[in-house]
Amino acid sequence: MDRMSKDAQAEFETCGECAARLHHWVEQHKKYTSEGKCAEYIPALRYANQEALGVCIIGYDGEIIKGGEADIVFTMQSISKVISFMTVCMARGISYTLERTDVEPTGDPYNSIMRLELKKPARPFNPMINAGAITVASFLPGGTKEEKFAALLDTLEKLLGRRPTVNEKVYTSEKKTAHYNFALAHFLKAGGYLECEVEDAIEIYLKQCAIEVTVEDLAKIGLVLACDGFHPLTNKRLLPLEIARLTKAVMLTCGMYNASGKFAAFVGAPSKSGVSGGIMTAVPPRQHKATPFHNGCGIGVYSPAIDEAGNSAAGVKLLQHISTKWELSVF
Amino acid sequence: MDRMSKDAQAEFETCGECAARLHHWVEQHKKYTSEGKCAEYIPALRYANQEALGVCIIGYDGEIIKGGEADIVFTMQSISKVISFMTVCMARGISYTLERTDVEPTGDPYNSIMRLELKKPARPFNPMINAGAITVASFLPGGTKEEKFAALLDTLEKLLGRRPTVNEKVYTSEKKTAHYNFALAHFLKAGGYLECEVEDAIEIYLKQCAIEVTVEDLAKIGLVLACDGFHPLTNKRLLPLEIARLTKAVMLTCGMYNASGKFAAFVGAPSKSGVSGGIMTAVPPRQHKATPFHNGCGIGVYSPAIDEAGNSAAGVKLLQHISTKWELSVF
Amino acid sequence: MDRMSKDAQAEFETCGECAARLHHWVEQHKKYTSEGKCAEYIPALRYANQEALGVCIIGYDGEIIKGGEADIVFTMQSISKVISFMTVCMARGISYTLERTDVEPTGDPYNSIMRLELKKPARPFNPMINAGAITVASFLPGGTKEEKFAALLDTLEKLLGRRPTVNEKVYTSEKKTAHYNFALAHFLKAGGYLECEVEDAIEIYLKQCAIEVTVEDLAKIGLVLACDGFHPLTNKRLLPLEIARLTKAVMLTCGMYNASGKFAAFVGAPSKSGVSGGIMTAVPPRQHKATPFHNGCGIGVYSPAIDEAGNSAAGVKLLQHISTKWELSVF
Amino acid sequence: MDRMSKDAQAEFETCGECAARLHHWVEQHKKYTSEGKCAEYIPALRYANQEALGVCIIGYDGEIIKGGEADIVFTMQSISKVISFMTVCMARGISYTLERTDVEPTGDPYNSIMRLELKKPARPFNPMINAGAITVASFLPGGTKEEKFAALLDTLEKLLGRRPTVNEKVYTSEKKTAHYNFALAHFLKAGGYLECEVEDAIEIYLKQCAIEVTVEDLAKIGLVLACDGFHPLTNKRLLPLEIARLTKAVMLTCGMYNASGKFAAFVGAPSKSGVSGGIMTAVPPRQHKATPFHNGCGIGVYSPAIDEAGNSAAGVKLLQHISTKWELSVF
Repeated sequence: MDRMSKDAQAEFETCGECAARLHHWVEQHKKYTSEGKCAEYIPALRYANQEALGVCIIGYDGEIIKGGEADIVFTMQSISKVISFMTVCMARGISYTLERTDVEPTGDPYNSIMRLELKKPARPFNPMINAGAITVASFLPGGTKEEKFAALLDTLEKLLGRRPTVNEKVYTSEKKTAHYNFALAHFLKAGGYLECEVEDAIEIYLKQCAIEVTVEDLAKIGLVLACDGFHPLTNKRLLPLEIARLTKAVMLTCGMYNASGKFAAFVGAPSKSGVSGGIMTAVPPRQHKATPFHNGCGIGVYSPAIDEAGNSAAGVKLLQHISTKWELSVF
Repeated sequence: MDRMSKDAQAEFETCGECAARLHHWVEQHKKYTSEGKCAEYIPALRYANQEALGVCIIGYDGEIIKGGEADIVFTMQSISKVISFMTVCMARGISYTLERTDVEPTGDPYNSIMRLELKKPARPFNPMINAGAITVASFLPGGTKEEKFAALLDTLEKLLGRRPTVNEKVYTSEKKTAHYNFALAHFLKAGGYLECEVEDAIEIYLKQCAIEVTVEDLAKIGLVLACDGFHPLTNKRLLPLEIARLTKAVMLTCGMYNASGKFAAFVGAPSKSGVSGGIMTAVPPRQHKATPFHNGCGIGVYSPAIDEAGNSAAGVKLLQHISTKWELSVF
Repeated sequence: MDRMSKDAQAEFETCGECAARLHHWVEQHKKYTSEGKCAEYIPALRYANQEALGVCIIGYDGEIIKGGEADIVFTMQSISKVISFMTVCMARGISYTLERTDVEPTGDPYNSIMRLELKKPARPFNPMINAGAITVASFLPGGTKEEKFAALLDTLEKLLGRRPTVNEKVYTSEKKTAHYNFALAHFLKAGGYLECEVEDAIEIYLKQCAIEVTVEDLAKIGLVLACDGFHPLTNKRLLPLEIARLTKAVMLTCGMYNASGKFAAFVGAPSKSGVSGGIMTAVPPRQHKATPFHNGCGIGVYSPAIDEAGNSAAGVKLLQHISTKWELSVF
Repeated sequence: MDRMSKDAQAEFETCGECAARLHHWVEQHKKYTSEGKCAEYIPALRYANQEALGVCIIGYDGEIIKGGEADIVFTMQSISKVISFMTVCMARGISYTLERTDVEPTGDPYNSIMRLELKKPARPFNPMINAGAITVASFLPGGTKEEKFAALLDTLEKLLGRRPTVNEKVYTSEKKTAHYNFALAHFLKAGGYLECEVEDAIEIYLKQCAIEVTVEDLAKIGLVLACDGFHPLTNKRLLPLEIARLTKAVMLTCGMYNASGKFAAFVGAPSKSGVSGGIMTAVPPRQHKATPFHNGCGIGVYSPAIDEAGNSAAGVKLLQHISTKWELSVF
């Protein structure tokens, strides 16, 4: 709340009813945590509090409302793919980036490799599946893996107002079992789709997955995306409009793993999930004057029990409920 | 123009500048017809005028602007998949329908069969690829193929204000070379995903593909979808809100064949294309007051030379230009 | 026994011991019938006697030994693929035939379609999977489906000394549920791999599957193949040597569905199975003088309970035992 | 010739006519070298003499005939897969080995990965494709990569009478471009199909590929396999009969990459090829008394220009010719 303007404070008070409702909805949706399971393949994620559910919404005027376990720190995992994609687009240009990864949804699991073999050349289908994200990580600007990773942190620092930390334990834990990612990276290297060595690309990719955030952080990034790259509170443009739009489109079509179609249908707001249970959502402005946040907002959700597709089980249900009640859908 | 109210007429006059611009853009984009080719596999489509490009936009208040060859009558082809999907959703309910076809994009060509073999049960991935559309056609309400097809025409009649005709020559021509569709239909029948016999499902599906429309027809349907199922000129609700939203989401993620991701990124409005060269677009209302059609509009485009993915080559370019200039994107 | 020469009769007496052993082995292996299940997808096959196991071996000099339920009449199913392949090779030539079907094993289930989509042109991989067999059936010599099927019966009549009958009940039963085969046939037709209409190709193919035989019939055909196309008892050449060799090679690499590799490893004699539970084996002459049938033999086995790959469960076990004891392997 | 007995020497003289014929056939088939190309992806192989063609045949009694460039030293490449497979079978037992790799042909290119993703568990289909060979390499007996590789050399030393050397230049060259193999190895590691670390498995596998041999070496190994593991000249059993038979079956069904079916049809003798242009063939004894080498023989062929499937172009043609003339087929 500290970074908000006076006017935003005022608005926030009137938003008290929204906060009360959100609190109620979170309580109602906690039961859905039992429909998921914490990710097993990354040992460090296995021990999260399976029943947690937290949410944060930040509106155009800086109003913030939170609900549930909103203070838990967790790792970004696949949500970081959005940041690396935007960073590469900004550094290299959109067309350079899209020559190295398409933006087509696939219907395949996120770590699938077979499409790289079936279609020549083996360009990854989109930057939200692991194949595309590893390619993108390798093309981060910089001559070394340290510089490349720093470039990604720079983007995050601009968006969050602080330089985030890496959870080394999660990073180390993931690296030990990252065989599917190594397989993808070697395949991509063979096809000329990595700018650096396989080991370096994987290190950058796994480090970005292990960056620590809160739901408020995700809501902040979501808000900037919702506002086409413009930060409404600081009055600064943080991302070029074209890149913000492109990123939202990719999030909507590819962001929720192979449940992206259903999420688009029943939530309808550009979102990206991670296997740690986080979801970052950007809600563009709409015409519905009567609904809260009609000028756009960012939402962060966290609930570590994930469903079969890899999305937070309770998180998806909660977003669907909020979207129905407050008309968040872009459609 | 005859169905428009007085006020709409007035608005239209002020829209003269828009019409002029659109006319200019159409002329500018005709050159892209050379980047596509008329569909070869359906003999009757092969002889279309390869250089034609026509467009029609209808706004919330009934204002209509047209450009290029806007009077050509062509067959709906895959655009009809939108109509059959909505008809089945209305008749059977959304959840019944989605049990028979998922709404996930695939990244595969529209007539692909392999995913039906790879994933059990062999539920089609979405209603915009042929597999899903054939399933949906078979579940149209009615006990016979005639009744099922009539149900689809009923929906179209409601939307268009007239009962459209079937181009028998195109229908007959397609039936002769419909082997991939027959293959899909038999596979679906084996898995229990057809309500009627294979022959009947194919007949309904190919007949719906051969329904004749103009770009104005497509714009009308697009407008109703843009307005969440409500017809702004007649003040009647023609489609339930939930079904209109679901349909727009499916169009955005799956509507432009395996180029849907790129189209979402660079046009950003729910659309459905057909191999005859038509594209139907629904533009939901946006906040950008300064742009034309900010209260939403429907767009119909026709240009028969299609690109590799099966979308009208010049049509896609023109829509991208209009979207950039007039902010049509939902993102 | 009636068609055997005097000398063969004599030899047969000395073969009494072999017959006794075979009888014993059949009894020992009946227990493996419980490891399979009668084919479910063809209603008429579902009601076979699940516990039956019968075998017949015919040697170079005409000696015949039998064991178990050796008199049951059953339908050839996929074993007929061997006959149609040889018929087309004889009528059209080997190179003409192999341009329409390759002879490469696939590792896929017999009714798989995805490889036809993945590899262009969509030439079937081998004539022992359904795709290849339907193509081959369509290329049987003759201008009508009746003539084509008659050509196949002609080959069988030459080999068996009688014109076999078609089990109409099985044929009708299969046709009703032949959707996967229809899907394959339409795909093949689209690619130019059928000489006749889809309906006709399927009719011929399903009729050949429904031809009735006994284990003695299979042993006779196996013997002629073992002898490179020469009938040792009638002293007539029934098949050209090159076609007999080619056919045996295809049987060894592709004849036992996607368990052909294991069967080659542990039985090692060219064989073809059918889902009705029959197996036809050709054992070429070997140098091992001390073993029975070292001049080559044909074997027919029947046991309707089939394993996951589609091969007779007890039949495979019995053949493995006989091969080990009597050195039937070509390796 | 030095290791042959006196009698074998005598026999060899009478084999003069065979040698003359072979010499003639080699000359005739040199032209087919132009139908292939030296492997490009391994830099060190690119510079082989594209027009070379050499052959060596060793018969049951030790008779040796050679033709063409029979003294060139080349690397085993995939032919080494036969040696590692036999070594693991001997050390761990057949059933232990087959639990870790099946013996089914696939129809896929040798470095294909998609089947590992499609079929669960991701057991390699056979030990002659790279996936299976890397698994087998990791299961060589020994606690370190050095011990494991030594075990493979031990087998080769027994078979060749000398300990072969590794071409370090080829090994280093392959390692640099081994991304597809690393991708396979990581996938296999993820599925539990490697006994050692990925790096070690690849090192062993690439070292075995770089072992240097001549066509005479290949003929010697082929002869021992032809004789079911028994060395006819030293009167020693070098391999258990069951393992020799199994290996020959796997060579016949899977040994010539995805042209194994055609090779079985038109050559018909168990063989294994490598991308360096070598082919090792085992010809089991046959009954045809009138033909040379009817007691079995081993054949080594070398011609570095390989065809699309990865087999020596002229080598395959030459073997087909020899097989037709001297009846080498097992069928």
